[in-house]
Amino acid sequence: MREVAVLGLGQTPVGEHWDRSLVSLAGEAALGALNDAGVDRPDTLIVSNMLSGTGTGTQLNLGALIADWCGLKGLEAYKAEAACGSGGAAFRAGVHAVGSGLVDLALVVGVEKMTQTPGAVTTAGLATAADGDYEAAHGPSFIALNALVMRRYQHEYGWKHDDFAPFSLNAHANAARNPYARLHQPITREEYRRARMVCEPINLLDSSPIGDGAAAVVLAPADRLARDGHRPRVVVAGSGAATDSLAVHDRHDPLWLAAAEGSARQAYAQAGVGPEDIDFFELHDAFSIMAALSLEAGGFAERGQGPRFALEGKILPKGRLPIATHGGLKARGHPVGATGVYQIVEVARQLWGAAADNQLPGPRVGMAQNIGGSGATVFTHILRIA
Amino acid sequence: MREVAVLGLGQTPVGEHWDRSLVSLAGEAALGALNDAGVDRPDTLIVSNMLSGTGTGTQLNLGALIADWCGLKGLEAYKAEAACGSGGAAFRAGVHAVGSGLVDLALVVGVEKMTQTPGAVTTAGLATAADGDYEAAHGPSFIALNALVMRRYQHEYGWKHDDFAPFSLNAHANAARNPYARLHQPITREEYRRARMVCEPINLLDSSPIGDGAAAVVLAPADRLARDGHRPRVVVAGSGAATDSLAVHDRHDPLWLAAAEGSARQAYAQAGVGPEDIDFFELHDAFSIMAALSLEAGGFAERGQGPRFALEGKILPKGRLPIATHGGLKARGHPVGATGVYQIVEVARQLWGAAADNQLPGPRVGMAQNIGGSGATVFTHILRIA
Repeated sequence: MREVAVLGLGQTPVGEHWDRSLVSLAGEAALGALNDAGVDRPDTLIVSNMLSGTGTGTQLNLGALIADWCGLKGLEAYKAEAACGSGGAAFRAGVHAVGSGLVDLALVVGVEKMTQTPGAVTTAGLATAADGDYEAAHGPSFIALNALVMRRYQHEYGWKHDDFAPFSLNAHANAARNPYARLHQPITREEYRRARMVCEPINLLDSSPIGDGAAAVVLAPADRLARDGHRPRVVVAGSGAATDSLAVHDRHDPLWLAAAEGSARQAYAQAGVGPEDIDFFELHDAFSIMAALSLEAGGFAERGQGPRFALEGKILPKGRLPIATHGGLKARGHPVGATGVYQIVEVARQLWGAAADNQLPGPRVGMAQNIGGSGATVFTHILRIA
Repeated sequence: MREVAVLGLGQTPVGEHWDRSLVSLAGEAALGALNDAGVDRPDTLIVSNMLSGTGTGTQLNLGALIADWCGLKGLEAYKAEAACGSGGAAFRAGVHAVGSGLVDLALVVGVEKMTQTPGAVTTAGLATAADGDYEAAHGPSFIALNALVMRRYQHEYGWKHDDFAPFSLNAHANAARNPYARLHQPITREEYRRARMVCEPINLLDSSPIGDGAAAVVLAPADRLARDGHRPRVVVAGSGAATDSLAVHDRHDPLWLAAAEGSARQAYAQAGVGPEDIDFFELHDAFSIMAALSLEAGGFAERGQGPRFALEGKILPKGRLPIATHGGLKARGHPVGATGVYQIVEVARQLWGAAADNQLPGPRVGMAQNIGGSGATVFTHILRIA
């Protein structure tokens, strides 16, 4: 497969865009990425979205709709979906499309519009990421499944709720400097401790906020020049994907993200690197427990020791492995089907040195990991400066 | 891109499978295809589905669920969606995945489960293939949009309703010999004429029936040997994809399937063939008007003359260009998100000489075309004996 590079990026702020339609958000990010790349017309459009077909005012066939809105009538387009992992799925499909040589320029757009959908519909919609017959049908919401995992994890490894605070504090601190983030308030340990309980032991500040937003990436063969000739060339060094049982109770070990481990292992092998070579990690911190488990599955922390890694300050911008450098799902926000593309945007911005107030000092290798369901469908991508 | 071959096939009958779940249908087709190919474990699973996230009892994240059901825990998986064109989208993504060299064996599974969903929900679900803001919100169902196209077509080109009969007669005659088809009754011209009106001028025998079903294909590099060494090697010679405005009224000409033309042109160019080289055509005859328009867009009939091509008998099994050789959407049935994969299965069966009572005499090049929306998202694939 020929090498694939990230040529351009676009994103909208994550928020409650009451006055915006799904297609206008997607279009803004898409046109932004095309302009950033200096590309008038890509060869293919791959959209990621989770919920536009669920609930009221539904719309499928988003590819054709978004292509047309962008003035790209005729363009090949379809949607990739893997629940909250949809963005990672679409990005990987784009890497395959360009890597195969069948197309030269792929536009990947992640979009989600969750406001104007009643809360009960949203809760039911998010539960479609879990096993409909053996989990959702029995009542638990998606957060409840994660709460069961977190409670068990605390029981097995002896962590107190307070030990998860660094994940949330770091994410909020980073989001405060990111104009595209949904939440801009830094939080204190005391605020974390006293936050309203959502589903025990997960409280409000363990939880990522949903939202509306879109992010987009233009992929091209690595020898294609970007509009901005001063940017370092950022290539997709590794791409991995794996799944686990959709139902948490069917897994060999509910406290181990086997699919995250498997997809990371593939990405490491393809890139010829190991965890020690990763400079920063945009992980899928939908809940603070997921951040801890992702650090372990990625080989950064020992099993059961994700919180220690955070408590030691290693996840901070100046730590060993900065995570959620733009705020993560926790504070940049989690527009579910778009999140995986936001992560790629954030990794590339860091590697280009274009992360503004969120810039890390000279990173060369970054990893993004996007998860659909409570660890069921995982896509891991390693980007590096060529 | 390296050449990609179809290594194995699986399908369930299309029908009302009241006693079957979506995942069991998908699993039967998937395991059938793996067994047919002599493959224990593929490298990736791409699922196509349109409606499982819509309405009641919804389920997204199908990839992980189906992989697990098949005993393929850990396997990479995601879903491709482009409304009724989802199967074509997934197949094309599979071709890219294998063609890129990043994976060797791709399993593509199309599945739809439409029984046990109330009719009103199904009608609303199918309307999500159209433009939500500018078509569906104003009341027309999906069939109503097609009816407007057919009425205009009759007005412009002077065809009577009865002139569309050959499409339906051919499909039903072919389905009668296909054990996987939903409808097994041959029909007469008189029955076509007197069929109950659904949405004028589209009557019941102009319309494809929905249904439950799953079809699956294993894709591999062209040099990989199949279990059945006597089969001719069938490769994907051409793959094309294009879109048009989702809303029919936004198109340059609502009576011309520009996306079908564009995607066919790409597939012809890649395969190095033209319409004259195609031995048979599995087209997207969701309504008889769509069969006529597809023949024109594919370059087989003159503009406005699709019905003449059929009236002259050219679409019959012994005609110039047999279509719907296993019954087509019209009579094999249209389990929407699975249809595009059924079409590939049917083309490969013909080329292998494995089409049993539906076998054409020695075809060497077959074309499948899958459409999402009323001509909005189109995937065209040309398969041939290598």
